[in-house]
Amino acid sequence: MEFSSKLLENAVYEMAQLPGIGKRTALRLVLHLLKQPKERTQQLSAALSKLREEVNFCRSCFNISDTEICEICANPKRDRSIICVVEDVRDVMAIENTAQFQGLYHVLGGKISPMEGIGPQDLKIAQLIEKVRAGEVRELIFALSSTMEGDTTNFYIYKQLEGLEVKTSTIARGIAVGDELEYADEVTLGRSIVNRVPFERSIKAN
Amino acid sequence: MEFSSKLLENAVYEMAQLPGIGKRTALRLVLHLLKQPKERTQQLSAALSKLREEVNFCRSCFNISDTEICEICANPKRDRSIICVVEDVRDVMAIENTAQFQGLYHVLGGKISPMEGIGPQDLKIAQLIEKVRAGEVRELIFALSSTMEGDTTNFYIYKQLEGLEVKTSTIARGIAVGDELEYADEVTLGRSIVNRVPFERSIKAN
Repeated sequence: MEFSSKLLENAVYEMAQLPGIGKRTALRLVLHLLKQPKERTQQLSAALSKLREEVNFCRSCFNISDTEICEICANPKRDRSIICVVEDVRDVMAIENTAQFQGLYHVLGGKISPMEGIGPQDLKIAQLIEKVRAGEVRELIFALSSTMEGDTTNFYIYKQLEGLEVKTSTIARGIAVGDELEYADEVTLGRSIVNRVPFERSIKAN
Repeated sequence: MEFSSKLLENAVYEMAQLPGIGKRTALRLVLHLLKQPKERTQQLSAALSKLREEVNFCRSCFNISDTEICEICANPKRDRSIICVVEDVRDVMAIENTAQFQGLYHVLGGKISPMEGIGPQDLKIAQLIEKVRAGEVRELIFALSSTMEGDTTNFYIYKQLEGLEVKTSTIARGIAVGDELEYADEVTLGRSIVNRVPFERSIKAN
């Protein structure tokens, strides 16, 4: 692309660094900003800068939080003995949305991924083990996505827990509610049969 | 969406104001920035702010340009008697890429669109008529997209030109080079037959 302006080229270049945003899309977004009042762009820039400069992670669960201890960790009604281990803030939001979990979270900040150069020391795994070692935790629920990286991370943490008295579980894998059996993949369908649930319990859940 | 942080919520909100970016995508982009070094975000913010504050439009053709008169308008080799009328900078870039046009451009800044509240006075139409009135222009090539709005804009300008001595043309519509006839829409195929081109000329163009 040949730009008529260095300023424009630079803005498009920076925008196109975002994942999933190509040069064409970046140009479209930047031109959109140019058609809007200046305040729009200033607010966007300021919000991004401010977040990046002042972002704070809860000292206990490492979720993004404006306070030193996040609202969930600070809530006396939450069950401190169950910790749900997740990858990032999106997972916390998704699980909170279900209103089915009353315990605390532990946000790892990613998954072990040798391909992307992310090792255990880049994640909040040591802090999790420390938390378990402190003794208050009765159960860890692994809620990472079931990919190679997710499974590796689960297993790594599991091995680190050896000798510690804590129950571990993973969230149930199975056919999504409302989905047709015939379109489910074999692995999921297989697991959903092996891990079948007493009928009475499935009624109660609804 | 329930956010655990106001800063995060605000950044996602601002990002989601961009066209085609929903809340989920915005969250993904913002979390990506958080994983990158701070400089990434600062550079993005700065590039957007700087462009929005300092953007300059060529005094002659209204293309985005860092100089008062853009490179194309300032180039003595370009033919000042032919002006290609386009909607925005993307069209200039696309046509420049073909290296087939040696004239100048006139960037309207949009199309007449009553639905979006864009009237002729919001575009650089008066300036175009003024340019033609000054006498140097021999031909105007309308290169707006062939939508209702594009056609309306073409026609509006055409009416404004009444009594002025200037040739007008539109870019050729037809089957794209390399396309199969059977997949072409009827209107395009119809126009491509009505506006057929002497075979000798089609050979020369390749």
